[in-house]
Amino acid sequence: MKFPLTTTGVAPDFAKGGGLVAAIAQDAGTREVLMLAWLNQEAWERTLETGEAHYYSRSRKSLWHKGGTSGHVQKVKGIRIDCDSDALVLLVEQIGGAACHEGFRSCFFRELTKEGVTVCSPKVFDPREVYP
Amino acid sequence: MKFPLTTTGVAPDFAKGGGLVAAIAQDAGTREVLMLAWLNQEAWERTLETGEAHYYSRSRKSLWHKGGTSGHVQKVKGIRIDCDSDALVLLVEQIGGAACHEGFRSCFFRELTKEGVTVCSPKVFDPREVYP
Repeated sequence: MKFPLTTTGVAPDFAKGGGLVAAIAQDAGTREVLMLAWLNQEAWERTLETGEAHYYSRSRKSLWHKGGTSGHVQKVKGIRIDCDSDALVLLVEQIGGAACHEGFRSCFFRELTKEGVTVCSPKVFDPREVYP
Repeated sequence: MKFPLTTTGVAPDFAKGGGLVAAIAQDAGTREVLMLAWLNQEAWERTLETGEAHYYSRSRKSLWHKGGTSGHVQKVKGIRIDCDSDALVLLVEQIGGAACHEGFRSCFFRELTKEGVTVCSPKVFDPREVYP
């Protein structure tokens, strides 16, 4: 049990969002926003128990241990909760260096500018080699 | 028109989320995550046109110009979009210094630790004085 938070009295309000809360994964060191995902009660409990980010995959409708297969897990260094208790920030160490399945450090790798779209996050791996 | 992005070919996928995309407001300077909110097509267009963050209030079911009444607007310095095109990061300058209606710089002002809950973002104003 890495975060025995059941004793703190503060918990996400899953009911408000139909069983889900949004979670922003932010690099604990650089503070780069890495991704946005969702947690249900089970994902929350598994995250607290293991200290590794677990999400609820809305497309697969199932628990998702981020990096559980590849080893590129997110070690949770801190958890912040917003004033409405329906959104979280997970301060994480991203093992492997990339949160995005397209190989970029951040899923938010595209920045929109007046001139067009620029890539604003480094590419860490080639997804064709990791997901052949 | 501060961000004439209709010409870039990249746009949020509102259809996937029932007309809404999630937006993370992040301080453009400190990189602190300030809040999580939602945009619909109208809020997106108003944000691009004005260069100030506009959201869709799910509770009020209406367009929400953040800080439109108080003057504590969010000046948009950059817009990032994720790999699925259903989430945004707005890099903003928070006028007045506080994004949270409770007076804290960030809505994520509570950090959950093994010892309990600590306040991790400074209080900028007293909401009883601002919202009497």
